[in-house]
Amino acid sequence: MKRHGRWVFPVVISILLMGTFMRSIEADVNSGDSRNIIFLIGDGMGVSFTSGYRYLKDNPTTIELESTEFGPYLVGQQTTFPNDSRHSVTDSAASATAMATGVKTYNGAIGIGTNHSKLKSVLERAKEKGKGTGLVATAQITHGTPAAFGAHVSHRKSMAAIADEYYQDLVSGEHKIDVMLGGGSDWFIRKDRNLVEEFVKDGFSYVTNLEGMKNDHNTQVLGLFSKGGLPKMIDRSKETPSLADMTTSALERLNQNPNGFFLMVEGSQIDWAAHDNDIVGAMSEMEDFEKAFKVAIDFAKKDGQTLVIATADHSTGGFTIGAEGQYNWFPSVIKAVKRTPNFIAAEIVKGAAVKETLTKYIDLPLTKNEIKSVERAARTMKAKNIDNAIEEIINIRSFTGWTTSGHTGEDVNVYAYGPGSKRFAGQIDNTDHAKIIFDILK
Amino acid sequence: MKRHGRWVFPVVISILLMGTFMRSIEADVNSGDSRNIIFLIGDGMGVSFTSGYRYLKDNPTTIELESTEFGPYLVGQQTTFPNDSRHSVTDSAASATAMATGVKTYNGAIGIGTNHSKLKSVLERAKEKGKGTGLVATAQITHGTPAAFGAHVSHRKSMAAIADEYYQDLVSGEHKIDVMLGGGSDWFIRKDRNLVEEFVKDGFSYVTNLEGMKNDHNTQVLGLFSKGGLPKMIDRSKETPSLADMTTSALERLNQNPNGFFLMVEGSQIDWAAHDNDIVGAMSEMEDFEKAFKVAIDFAKKDGQTLVIATADHSTGGFTIGAEGQYNWFPSVIKAVKRTPNFIAAEIVKGAAVKETLTKYIDLPLTKNEIKSVERAARTMKAKNIDNAIEEIINIRSFTGWTTSGHTGEDVNVYAYGPGSKRFAGQIDNTDHAKIIFDILK
Repeated sequence: MKRHGRWVFPVVISILLMGTFMRSIEADVNSGDSRNIIFLIGDGMGVSFTSGYRYLKDNPTTIELESTEFGPYLVGQQTTFPNDSRHSVTDSAASATAMATGVKTYNGAIGIGTNHSKLKSVLERAKEKGKGTGLVATAQITHGTPAAFGAHVSHRKSMAAIADEYYQDLVSGEHKIDVMLGGGSDWFIRKDRNLVEEFVKDGFSYVTNLEGMKNDHNTQVLGLFSKGGLPKMIDRSKETPSLADMTTSALERLNQNPNGFFLMVEGSQIDWAAHDNDIVGAMSEMEDFEKAFKVAIDFAKKDGQTLVIATADHSTGGFTIGAEGQYNWFPSVIKAVKRTPNFIAAEIVKGAAVKETLTKYIDLPLTKNEIKSVERAARTMKAKNIDNAIEEIINIRSFTGWTTSGHTGEDVNVYAYGPGSKRFAGQIDNTDHAKIIFDILK
Repeated sequence: MKRHGRWVFPVVISILLMGTFMRSIEADVNSGDSRNIIFLIGDGMGVSFTSGYRYLKDNPTTIELESTEFGPYLVGQQTTFPNDSRHSVTDSAASATAMATGVKTYNGAIGIGTNHSKLKSVLERAKEKGKGTGLVATAQITHGTPAAFGAHVSHRKSMAAIADEYYQDLVSGEHKIDVMLGGGSDWFIRKDRNLVEEFVKDGFSYVTNLEGMKNDHNTQVLGLFSKGGLPKMIDRSKETPSLADMTTSALERLNQNPNGFFLMVEGSQIDWAAHDNDIVGAMSEMEDFEKAFKVAIDFAKKDGQTLVIATADHSTGGFTIGAEGQYNWFPSVIKAVKRTPNFIAAEIVKGAAVKETLTKYIDLPLTKNEIKSVERAARTMKAKNIDNAIEEIINIRSFTGWTTSGHTGEDVNVYAYGPGSKRFAGQIDNTDHAKIIFDILK
């Protein structure tokens, strides 16, 4: 007996040691350390976009296609289908609601279910827990994806109502979103109401350009950098912050909250460019989103208590790397174009000569027929026609394929880093994001 | 000192216990238990195909799209680009060579590098280790993908040379492939040579239909079930084995080898259908491949020492779930078609009346214009035109998008199960498969 007695204490210690060891292994799974959560959404960023962007960034002097910032963090994929009797392919509102609330809903719904009941979002739950909260987007900050995290309306088009709710719908007596950075001042400064003044009265800073944002250090801020969506990255002036700039600013502010934070960052316009079948714009916005992702990852690596998730809501445009039977895709064509076709078309509509404008912004020896095709479009005086004519040149030359002006239903990638990241691994559904985050926040 | 002495033994035991515990956690990573390897390739099976097949199998009475057999085993994705100065999108030969040998090469190459040196395949390494080896495909067994595991020729078109090499190129004095099941008898029974007779003389069984395959239990077998590729699943007669049937037969034979085995299984014709922009054929072959995957998984679960990997070599056709601006994809249209358009077109070319033949095989109320479009095509007497006309009806009705008759460059999924499976997780390259398998086989 005594001999056994000698064993008891050390064995107990050893079991405790094993317990510690197991916990350290399971730390990631149990995510007890994910004090902060950064949830990034590349709107429309299907697999072809992350893969295509790798081709674009390739160093042509090596055999391999070098990894993008996303590569090392791939953990799996998610399904995106909505709960909509009339649509089997999702829109951004339904998929954002799924990711924000854990509930599938109909296309167009913002933070409400198919029975029109309000659904609590992970951002609202984070605020209930006293955490800092933020929404960052290159779209209007009231657009479908950010809105699903902070509002509840029956249709995404009600952007004034969404802005109103951002101001009025309090959580524990406080404004529920501490940091709002993006576009859409038209929805805050309206004939019927000036929400900017109301936010400022309640202690928020209001900033409207990069310098203003950088010089302000208030933990609560409304930053609106355009009337509608921001210009795409390659079309931006120096006054307009990048998605990375806005993410950095949001993190600096939110990190001051002793209870941690929840931040949603949307690369909104990968989708917009893809709806337009504009590969130049889509790749511009991929770069913008990649840089914001890197800001998040760098913050999380330094912080050690931050969970980063990056995914897409769906894919857009039916973009394919290669088309027309060719076993090639030529990103060099895309990189030769210095502004989006939309930007170039706008200049032409304003009166700029077609050939000179194309030559100014497109670093390729265009053929006579290509220039003629844009001149023909220019005679209609419609920017959309000119835009399409320019896009066609780029799509044909680069072998970029498109099948739709809408969305497509294939699974999209999930990237994750930090405590809790393994919970997002494998094949998951878009609702699983919210379910896991609610569990982390419980 | 004595007190410390009392601690030594139990602490050592505890450390040993911890070591055992760690090893049990690392077993998967170190893959010491992967005695058998089943490597499945869905040729052309991009993300849109695995996702689309989930839509096709959906139970419409539930909100969710139910998981396919693949879902639970998703571990990540692979890059597919070749090492080819003239092509940035891979073909099946280059990608299969990468997966079989760990070396990137040019499009068309079978088991050789860009400098035309022979590259050892994982199948050849398995045979060196005394393991059983097998190739199963619904294409000719000499086609690009299987060939890269068992032959070395400068171009995939040299299928006679590939068949010759299967017979002649010995490993440790033995035939290197124990089990060959698929199509392609034309490449074995030729004017210049009868390789079937040569294999039979050396102790192989030769089988040519499902019954023959099932009744034969020789560990070495050549099974050729068609002159070229097998008919697609929905076009097959009862005499033709499915990919699952061939996989089951291969496993029964290979499992008799006391040293374990390496088996490559290819769902060859997902790609063929997609080249043709035929969604009916593509989904038929997805089902064939899914069932073979399930055979492999069921075997591995029972066996406990089998590593299963399933992936694709690239995507094909630029297939998209949704097209033309619609937020819908209608697999009900696809499921209403009971034979591939190729099969239906062949009947019409042979003299069958257009309207009656369409009505016989397509369970949809076709419009007058749809029937007329096929009748117009039929007047050309070209099967290809009739095939295209039928495909167009199905693609338009189902909102199936296509951008190319070739391949596309986006990453493809990797599924894995069993000891060693975690080594395939995350973002990997197609060469990593061979590198990891070589390491397991070392």
